[in-house]
Amino acid sequence: MYASRLTHGLITVKLREFGLLRDARLNVVEPHAPFKVGSFRVEFFRVCHSIPDAMGIALTTPLGMVIHTGDFKIDHTPADGLRTDFAELAALTSDGVLLMFSDSTYAEVEGYTASEQVVGEALDRVIGEAEGRVMVATFASLISRIQQVVNAAVKHGRKVTVVGRSMSNNVKMALNMGYLEAPQGTIVSMNEARQLPHDQVVIVATGSQGEPTSALVRIANGEHQDIEIVPGDTVVISASPIPGNEKVVSKTIDNLYRKGANVLYSRIALVHVHGHGSQEELKMMLSLIKPRFFVPVHGEYRHLVAHRALAQSMGIPAERTFVLEDGDVLELDESEGHVTGKVPAGHVFIDGNTLMHMHSPVINERRRLAKDGIVAVMITLSRASGDPLEDPGFVSSGFVELEDSQELFEKTSKVVLRTLDLEAGAPLDLKDVQARVSDSVSKYLYEETKRRPTVVTVVQQV
Amino acid sequence: MYASRLTHGLITVKLREFGLLRDARLNVVEPHAPFKVGSFRVEFFRVCHSIPDAMGIALTTPLGMVIHTGDFKIDHTPADGLRTDFAELAALTSDGVLLMFSDSTYAEVEGYTASEQVVGEALDRVIGEAEGRVMVATFASLISRIQQVVNAAVKHGRKVTVVGRSMSNNVKMALNMGYLEAPQGTIVSMNEARQLPHDQVVIVATGSQGEPTSALVRIANGEHQDIEIVPGDTVVISASPIPGNEKVVSKTIDNLYRKGANVLYSRIALVHVHGHGSQEELKMMLSLIKPRFFVPVHGEYRHLVAHRALAQSMGIPAERTFVLEDGDVLELDESEGHVTGKVPAGHVFIDGNTLMHMHSPVINERRRLAKDGIVAVMITLSRASGDPLEDPGFVSSGFVELEDSQELFEKTSKVVLRTLDLEAGAPLDLKDVQARVSDSVSKYLYEETKRRPTVVTVVQQV
Repeated sequence: MYASRLTHGLITVKLREFGLLRDARLNVVEPHAPFKVGSFRVEFFRVCHSIPDAMGIALTTPLGMVIHTGDFKIDHTPADGLRTDFAELAALTSDGVLLMFSDSTYAEVEGYTASEQVVGEALDRVIGEAEGRVMVATFASLISRIQQVVNAAVKHGRKVTVVGRSMSNNVKMALNMGYLEAPQGTIVSMNEARQLPHDQVVIVATGSQGEPTSALVRIANGEHQDIEIVPGDTVVISASPIPGNEKVVSKTIDNLYRKGANVLYSRIALVHVHGHGSQEELKMMLSLIKPRFFVPVHGEYRHLVAHRALAQSMGIPAERTFVLEDGDVLELDESEGHVTGKVPAGHVFIDGNTLMHMHSPVINERRRLAKDGIVAVMITLSRASGDPLEDPGFVSSGFVELEDSQELFEKTSKVVLRTLDLEAGAPLDLKDVQARVSDSVSKYLYEETKRRPTVVTVVQQV
Repeated sequence: MYASRLTHGLITVKLREFGLLRDARLNVVEPHAPFKVGSFRVEFFRVCHSIPDAMGIALTTPLGMVIHTGDFKIDHTPADGLRTDFAELAALTSDGVLLMFSDSTYAEVEGYTASEQVVGEALDRVIGEAEGRVMVATFASLISRIQQVVNAAVKHGRKVTVVGRSMSNNVKMALNMGYLEAPQGTIVSMNEARQLPHDQVVIVATGSQGEPTSALVRIANGEHQDIEIVPGDTVVISASPIPGNEKVVSKTIDNLYRKGANVLYSRIALVHVHGHGSQEELKMMLSLIKPRFFVPVHGEYRHLVAHRALAQSMGIPAERTFVLEDGDVLELDESEGHVTGKVPAGHVFIDGNTLMHMHSPVINERRRLAKDGIVAVMITLSRASGDPLEDPGFVSSGFVELEDSQELFEKTSKVVLRTLDLEAGAPLDLKDVQARVSDSVSKYLYEETKRRPTVVTVVQQV
């Protein structure tokens, strides 16, 4: 793995957590310090994103240069003061670029993405004006955002305490590596913070995505061991919900309001900007790099389509732009390119200690169980006569409440015995008995409950 | 039920669909045609929303007038041309208003909500400029939006066909009642539409929320019997995703792009405006009605809080504004109000034909089943000796794939027999045997698979 210093630090924290650090081969790279990998020359260049040390990659291949922008936006006033160096990037790509991969996440949004500075100013205002505690929730990796919070806290005479394991680990690492700067005594433990008047405290926490076990969500639900919301508290959610998290984030905000907090979030205050370029920035990058071929990357399919349209509007012919999906193989020569195949790519499904097929029938079984539960029927038959030796046994899970089940299963028992009765005399085929019993029980339970639990039958002969 | 003419029509369609029309007592009301209900005088007044015939309610009680705005926005150029009549509303409320309930859905959004006219113009442009078919997906109840589509289609020489059952029913009803106007021959059947050149067709469809069985989603997945997307088609999603639907809507858009359609949706084109007032409109309503007490309604808790803040900024004292949750009982007299209790209110959970408790243990069982599946163990013991008469039987669902299960259950069988062995000689307690077997099987399966399926054991004695 090749990574910037900060990324190296973040990866190290994670690998150590999972006991994998010793097996990993990590290399730290600096911008504009080229090196060789096989027959490729690799040079990283600085871009702006929501985290310091973000970089794009220039890969010189025998056929020409390939640029991968990584996640980027064009921020003239980034939190760490390090701008994208356009002059250096222009020099690097001056011999022409064969192919560019560029970040598409915000390709459907017109104009420019706001600068991190806007957020710094908003956080400063909120922390300066708050009369009680201020809690800021953000991604554990948003070191620049945490720096902005620390700056505002220092300016307004507050101490900062960090809650949430991943956030604490990252802050410790970033302080050690110099990516986060705080005057001695600014960052204090939770115990110290609890001794301070509320107007001298800022809490930085995880949970901006409504993750159920995160600090913020436990605080919002009144389940956190150290922190209880009181009226006068201000909570800032310095992040926007990742698609799919909207409802849990919204519920967290509601619960914080219920407890009397004042809550600020991206919809009503400028407390977050994202780290991806909008259309004008993407055009700027296309204009600077002038690639022969273009592949939009990062984002949903519609973002790739929107980015391709931008590239075409900048003069790259349609046949030299490619909207690819994971696993697509693109083959290029100097003059043309084609998608020539597909390699396996995508999610891997690990269940317990087993690697499962992505479309395992087990998944459908679980879906059905989740919907209507299960009823297991057990029958003991005489090997000699084929007759049942006992009334059928039933167990169920996720089907009916206990107090309703006894009467229902007594009636079902009669259905099973009638089903077995039809078999009398015929030679016993256990598979057939199982299937008939399951079938008649399913039908009977549907009639009675209008539900379709999974029905499984075990037959034993003694 | 008291409803406007159009609402009456929409309700009738639904009630008929579920066979409940005969049992319903429906009354049609007109704006400013007061009537009595018990000791209350009821008068409806016209407001603008995304559907024609939207109305608020003025309820004259012995203590004073209560206003409920219903969903509203202030639209000076609504699709049906019927504006909110402020003069009439002012006259109606001129003796003072005790209490107002007002729509809070967009209380966190500054400024004004755009007019329906903006959407009409955008749809006209899209339909005018498209070279192939145009498909517009929206809510089946958005009759005004459908009118805008019909107007644009007529203007640009296209026919309109409707897909999706609820959409077809509503269009038929709205045409009959005069809420939807279309020149003879404009609305055609799918069969007729299929005979026409693509540039003479507009399709109106359900599915704007990504509902899995809706017309649009089946079309996007290539599973619709009548309509297949071809390059050149334009699809307009004239709705925004309701919170929680973001991911399915986004997947639908991606699939339409994959099939070569050009897709327009609210994020990238002005093809939808919602029907709720933003802050300036809510203030206008507060300013016009000047209620003594204020209760924000509709929307999440944070919207109610934001609306309460608006009301306070307009001079209503904090102690006369109430953020209520479902079931809260508010008691008012002329001078003050208090929340005095709580009545049962909320969701009802109907499972099959049973009314279940909202926190039924069955739900947790289903959650567990969905996560790790189930293993049922069956044991037949001799009533005389207590010894097992057969090897234990196993069935599982949602746990392991079939080819892995045989070996695993053979080994588990030995574990069960060892567990039963310990029991030898002791008097047989079936409950205890069950618990011990389930316990040892759970432990063993966790060791082997690192999964924790529900384990149920049935014991029979013969």
